[in-house]
Amino acid sequence: MALSTASFPRQLLRTAVVDPQKPLQLASSQSFLPGEGAEALQQQLQNRQLKIKRRTCIAASLSERGEYHEKRPPTPLLDTINYPIHMKNLSIKELKQLADELRSDVIFNVSKTGGHLGSSLGVVELTVALHYVFNAPQDKILWDVGHQAYPHKILTGRRDKMPTMRQTDGLSGFTKRAESEYDAFGTGHSSTSISAALGMAVGRDLKGKKNDVVAVIGDGAMTAGQAYEAMNNAGYLDSDMIVILNDNKQVSLPTATLDGPAPPVGALSSALSRLQSSRPLRELREVAKGVTKQIGGSMHELAAKVDEYARGMISGSGSTLFEELGLYYIGPVDGHNLDDLVTILKEVKSTKTTGPVLIHVVTEKGCGYPYAEKAADKYHGVTKFDPATGKQFKSTSVTQSYTNYFAEALIAEAEADRDIVAIHAAMGGGTGLNLFQRRFPDRCFDVGIAEQHAVTFAAGLACEGIKPFCAIYSSFLQRAYDQVIHDVDLQKLPVRFAMDRAGLVGADGPTHSGSFDVTYMACLPNMVVMAPSDEAELFHMVATAAAIDDRPSCFRYPRGNGIGAILPAANKGIPLEVGRGRILLEGSRVALLGYGTAVQSCMAAATMVEKAAGMKVTVADARFCKPLDHGLIRNLAKNHEVLITVEEGSIGGFGSHVAQFMALSGLLDGSTKWRPIVLPDRYIEHGAPADQMAEAGLTPAHIAATVFNIIGRAREALEMMS
Amino acid sequence: MALSTASFPRQLLRTAVVDPQKPLQLASSQSFLPGEGAEALQQQLQNRQLKIKRRTCIAASLSERGEYHEKRPPTPLLDTINYPIHMKNLSIKELKQLADELRSDVIFNVSKTGGHLGSSLGVVELTVALHYVFNAPQDKILWDVGHQAYPHKILTGRRDKMPTMRQTDGLSGFTKRAESEYDAFGTGHSSTSISAALGMAVGRDLKGKKNDVVAVIGDGAMTAGQAYEAMNNAGYLDSDMIVILNDNKQVSLPTATLDGPAPPVGALSSALSRLQSSRPLRELREVAKGVTKQIGGSMHELAAKVDEYARGMISGSGSTLFEELGLYYIGPVDGHNLDDLVTILKEVKSTKTTGPVLIHVVTEKGCGYPYAEKAADKYHGVTKFDPATGKQFKSTSVTQSYTNYFAEALIAEAEADRDIVAIHAAMGGGTGLNLFQRRFPDRCFDVGIAEQHAVTFAAGLACEGIKPFCAIYSSFLQRAYDQVIHDVDLQKLPVRFAMDRAGLVGADGPTHSGSFDVTYMACLPNMVVMAPSDEAELFHMVATAAAIDDRPSCFRYPRGNGIGAILPAANKGIPLEVGRGRILLEGSRVALLGYGTAVQSCMAAATMVEKAAGMKVTVADARFCKPLDHGLIRNLAKNHEVLITVEEGSIGGFGSHVAQFMALSGLLDGSTKWRPIVLPDRYIEHGAPADQMAEAGLTPAHIAATVFNIIGRAREALEMMS
Repeated sequence: MALSTASFPRQLLRTAVVDPQKPLQLASSQSFLPGEGAEALQQQLQNRQLKIKRRTCIAASLSERGEYHEKRPPTPLLDTINYPIHMKNLSIKELKQLADELRSDVIFNVSKTGGHLGSSLGVVELTVALHYVFNAPQDKILWDVGHQAYPHKILTGRRDKMPTMRQTDGLSGFTKRAESEYDAFGTGHSSTSISAALGMAVGRDLKGKKNDVVAVIGDGAMTAGQAYEAMNNAGYLDSDMIVILNDNKQVSLPTATLDGPAPPVGALSSALSRLQSSRPLRELREVAKGVTKQIGGSMHELAAKVDEYARGMISGSGSTLFEELGLYYIGPVDGHNLDDLVTILKEVKSTKTTGPVLIHVVTEKGCGYPYAEKAADKYHGVTKFDPATGKQFKSTSVTQSYTNYFAEALIAEAEADRDIVAIHAAMGGGTGLNLFQRRFPDRCFDVGIAEQHAVTFAAGLACEGIKPFCAIYSSFLQRAYDQVIHDVDLQKLPVRFAMDRAGLVGADGPTHSGSFDVTYMACLPNMVVMAPSDEAELFHMVATAAAIDDRPSCFRYPRGNGIGAILPAANKGIPLEVGRGRILLEGSRVALLGYGTAVQSCMAAATMVEKAAGMKVTVADARFCKPLDHGLIRNLAKNHEVLITVEEGSIGGFGSHVAQFMALSGLLDGSTKWRPIVLPDRYIEHGAPADQMAEAGLTPAHIAATVFNIIGRAREALEMMS
Repeated sequence: MALSTASFPRQLLRTAVVDPQKPLQLASSQSFLPGEGAEALQQQLQNRQLKIKRRTCIAASLSERGEYHEKRPPTPLLDTINYPIHMKNLSIKELKQLADELRSDVIFNVSKTGGHLGSSLGVVELTVALHYVFNAPQDKILWDVGHQAYPHKILTGRRDKMPTMRQTDGLSGFTKRAESEYDAFGTGHSSTSISAALGMAVGRDLKGKKNDVVAVIGDGAMTAGQAYEAMNNAGYLDSDMIVILNDNKQVSLPTATLDGPAPPVGALSSALSRLQSSRPLRELREVAKGVTKQIGGSMHELAAKVDEYARGMISGSGSTLFEELGLYYIGPVDGHNLDDLVTILKEVKSTKTTGPVLIHVVTEKGCGYPYAEKAADKYHGVTKFDPATGKQFKSTSVTQSYTNYFAEALIAEAEADRDIVAIHAAMGGGTGLNLFQRRFPDRCFDVGIAEQHAVTFAAGLACEGIKPFCAIYSSFLQRAYDQVIHDVDLQKLPVRFAMDRAGLVGADGPTHSGSFDVTYMACLPNMVVMAPSDEAELFHMVATAAAIDDRPSCFRYPRGNGIGAILPAANKGIPLEVGRGRILLEGSRVALLGYGTAVQSCMAAATMVEKAAGMKVTVADARFCKPLDHGLIRNLAKNHEVLITVEEGSIGGFGSHVAQFMALSGLLDGSTKWRPIVLPDRYIEHGAPADQMAEAGLTPAHIAATVFNIIGRAREALEMMS
């Protein structure tokens, strides 16, 4: 079997990176040294100990002094490409140059805006190959999660808007149907692409169309149940579609620990590693021949036999998980080798009635940018940075994020109670549980992108007297809603839900907004539902959740930093009385009853009202949406003309619970007026947090204006908003 | 390799069934004919064409005349067993007799109560073997879904309560922690057991305990993503636990079509079939030896090699999907052969530090009761029946179920619009889509137990201009909540959700109650949310959903039969004006604004009020929760002292939307009183629908009493409730 000459580590490239003093032109064609490459690969294959193969990424352009550009790098070929149609006549050599320039452009753009870098760098060649071979937007290309779609956006008419990435009115950080017809399906949450692609493939067949459908999904996303459900159904329906498994050993997940790269979790990753080690990267022209034989329309029995035999020779382990599920498996393929990618994609595209095909592509996250490659997190998500040094510009803040405070609070509780454990779904960094993991490595469980399992797993732990804290973003917990109801709440098991990223989340936009959690959790009969108004309260609520051991509980907290509240000694919160709120400011006529960090906006609004009109309003912190503090609400309703509930959440949540209590208690029958301030009934696009709050009508000025409006002082209300 | 002498179809038994005139004593030991059995199996193995192997179920006791008992069958051995501890000294022969008697007892009991029969009959031997080998409740036995747990309930102290099955205050039809310490985990929805068992295994290890944990899960339930997530995590954590895959070729699902048994959907079932055909049922003592060698603590390299070789001989296809996921695979095992089951379970139990083990058990649903075996649905769920004839006593009704009306309405729409397709998740019978499937076989998609995939698949179809109707029970749609938000609502794709079993559902109880759908759907910005007040309205709402092609929509309807409304001609509904309700009765002082079938209770309450006090109240049918009919609500609020919203759903739903609109419009500031009637803030246990409605406070009498109470006529209110 011929071996690929292009699959060797390009030492010169690496050297250039390590020694930036050595000038080197990096047009990819120049670094292509067939003889040495073949030898190197032979060596590699014989030496089975070598676990991690180095990939042949095309490196980003260096300046003439061998450094990464601080200015926009020259991109003469890319400058001629506005849409995929402009790529169609390029040679493979030119495609390699295009990939080179595209990589540089991604690095330069993200260095100015921040964003998801590592995953985009990993798929530069794949993106070029896909848009070269397939004809989007007629052919559908679906990017799972969508955060790796920056090169795709550059090649599909949005290059000039890249400087607006993730900013107010700018490009989305994910794929989005409303943004471009080249974005076949909107994403943000993982593992949806195979389902959607299958729907598009079946829809195509029903409509009698002929286009291709391609889903690109990471190995991390493959750990989610939905991907399995979709493959099982795809194997059954047998519609023509292509799944590209972008396998970078689960560094696709933002799971790097504080102490370095995290080993992949989940047994699936072992299965993929076995595939990688048992099936050497092959000369794809050879594979392609086999593909035609095996899945071609008029398949000869004999040809099939021969091919089967060849496959048996290649594979040590018989069928793969994917084959068990009915997908035709091709791979593994070097995802940074444009020759191979183009060849295999062309072959698969030209072969008709294939049924579902899975192409296993091996890539390196952060490929071609050494600072990203070396980083524990492969620069998964970065702030603005200096491209010459890779150094990120972190904004300095006196306070830490709520995420970190949560982790510190939980560690303090776990120090005192050995039954406390923590569970997250591939979000060690995002949830702060990396800190917990370092302190209690045996009491922290990363279950992969598997929120459903995470919740029921926690329920099982609770059955055994363990005290599980499930830390899952508000919007991701939507994926485990049935498990929260059926396995936890209905059985009244004491699982604690730490819901990070509650409310609006800024640059990540509506897919990640925690808009609905109060509504969907507070309707559950046994759930204690709470939200801290500041970081000190968060410590107390972690302590409260730890203490509640006869029923489930949850608490929500936002993206972003604390307000500078005084933290409890040794990070150890004091359990709150369940169902008891507090009054923060005593006033008259109008009461602002806030839930969660909206309380801070209420306080600011009270200051504005007092400044503008010398009028003191009452501000209360509900702390609990469930159980409600009936005494507090009764008190506020009876002693004020107006009660305004304020929350950063959808209709049906805190305000609705307050209203229902007031109605049933007759508190709304008299002269008390109730006004709810909630998130508006539309999705708020990504952007600066301040812009989002203004768009949502949840700023202190909006609250103050509402106060003035309802007491009939329209002039002051207008002033508030000016 | 020795072949099991017990794995042959017991022709005599079958003959007895076919010819009930031939008297036969059926003590299992008598029907054990080693020589003939071995021959038969040899024959079977040589004849690879024979796809469906007949199993060796122990048949239920016959009367002396060879008929099934109409009276309680004699169960001398079972009568001595109240708890598993009483089984421990039985011989294998006695265990077989026990299984025989247990099967008879299950058939007799279910014939009197109705319930899930086929699945329970399939696991009689497995249940006996599990309780013989393991020591519940210290050892944890988890029954996935739980509807197959009737034999388990009989053996664990609940035999005397079997006549109360699924009735008010009686036994639950599923496992339930509050009911028995032998019910390790509560169920109702499928595919949770591996997650929960893994949690219990990890909890056991953290607590330093030594018990075993066993999850029993069907091959149908294996199609759900959560099972895959859990196996992937189990393979990674490598905790000792046992998963028993109860493989009956997906007849575990209630998917029989109108025209006979449904072929299994999903590629997984092909993989399992391959396992069954490539690995003959083996003498389990041999297998067990291999198990000890392979997974025993001090494993010799050599022994492992030998074993690997043996496994290679047995298996044609290398590793299984389960092995790819890190579980040690044993099987397939004849699930009706008590010798084999006891041997293998004992061996696995006595082998320590195994990691997760999967035992693939092949069973026959309905086994041992010929009427069940022959039925298309294997008597999955039955009404009361005559055990002698298998004939079910169906209650006669003038009207059909809402489920059927939905199917008829959708068929009528699909006749007129070829873009309409239907999707369900392994619930062809339950959703009525079997009817649609028969009419439009190419436009109906059963995706397996995979609600997440179903929804995103529908979103993909909608992208291509197809008009998908996703028919999923209200409580099952909870499992796809994130997909509803992220893939459908956020992208404003016109997917239609038909939410059957909305509100309380009677015998199935709280796991299946559709309590939360109005709350969790109406908070989504782009969703049209509606509910028909009767079956005619359901036809119109199906037509409305078909017509809404620029955004998602949903409609909920209950379990049970229509009220006898006049149906539209040719089943073709007329699209309603979106967001427009209607007034059904004009009255004064009090307005009842109902949502969904609660409107009927409002009408009945109005009659009661008029009869009791000569007072006419207004009754309105909201039709839409979103968008609300602002004009209607304004009208009702302005012209009545009291507005009572009535719905069979949780807090945060229709009433909350009405209240928020009224508050923001100032309609609550004056003298209008608002009272919400919703489901109470607790789970309503299974029972007769009328009992559930009374318990929930949602009967016409409750509504009438509320009317009298709020207008200060306490005496009449009391009368209503007496």
